[in-house]
Amino acid sequence: MHNLELYAVIFTSIRTNQNDGYSDMADRMVELAKQQPGFIDVESARNEIGITVSYWESLDAIKAWKQNTEHLFAQRKGRDVWYESYKVRIAKVEREYSFGKL
Amino acid sequence: MHNLELYAVIFTSIRTNQNDGYSDMADRMVELAKQQPGFIDVESARNEIGITVSYWESLDAIKAWKQNTEHLFAQRKGRDVWYESYKVRIAKVEREYSFGKL
Repeated sequence: MHNLELYAVIFTSIRTNQNDGYSDMADRMVELAKQQPGFIDVESARNEIGITVSYWESLDAIKAWKQNTEHLFAQRKGRDVWYESYKVRIAKVEREYSFGKL
Repeated sequence: MHNLELYAVIFTSIRTNQNDGYSDMADRMVELAKQQPGFIDVESARNEIGITVSYWESLDAIKAWKQNTEHLFAQRKGRDVWYESYKVRIAKVEREYSFGKL
C-alpha cells in the first residue's frame, strides 16, 4: 500500500484491419505519455481484444493527457481508421498487492 | 454513466513456461467468476504480459470471489507453477465512455 493516489485508465479496444501507421502511433503515444506530468506506468496486451492500462497520479494528469494535441490527433484517427470500437474506464486504485517481481 | 457502483480488478501477470492445465484453469475461472454474485464482466488479453480485467458490483463481491474455494486452489497453483509474477489492483470506476459497439 502507498499514500499517493493512483488512478488507472483502462482502455479496451477492438481493431479494424487497417494498419496505416498504427504501431508507430502506439509506440509514439507510449513515449509521449511517459513525458506527461503525473504519468506513472503503462501496460498493454492484445490478442482478440487489446487492453492498455495506464496509471496516473491524479484525474488532472489524465485530463491533461487526454487533451494533449498529438494525442487528440491519434484519438481522432483511432475512431476514423484503427478502432472498430473502444471503451475507456477511469478508476481510482483502492488497493494493490503483488507476487514475484512484476 | 450509470448510478450503480462498478469496481475493476486489474490482474497483470507474467507466465512461467509451465502449462500443466493452465488454459483449462483459465477457462474454468471465467466460467466460475460468471456464476458469482455481483459479477459484471471480464476481459483478457495476453502477449508479453497478460492483463485480465474483471468488473464487479462491490468490494464484497470481489472479496467473496477471492475466497471461492476453487479459486483459492487456482491462486495457490498460480504462485507455485503458472506465474512468474503478478500484480492485482482493485479500483473503483469513476467514469467511462465508449466508441462503437464494444
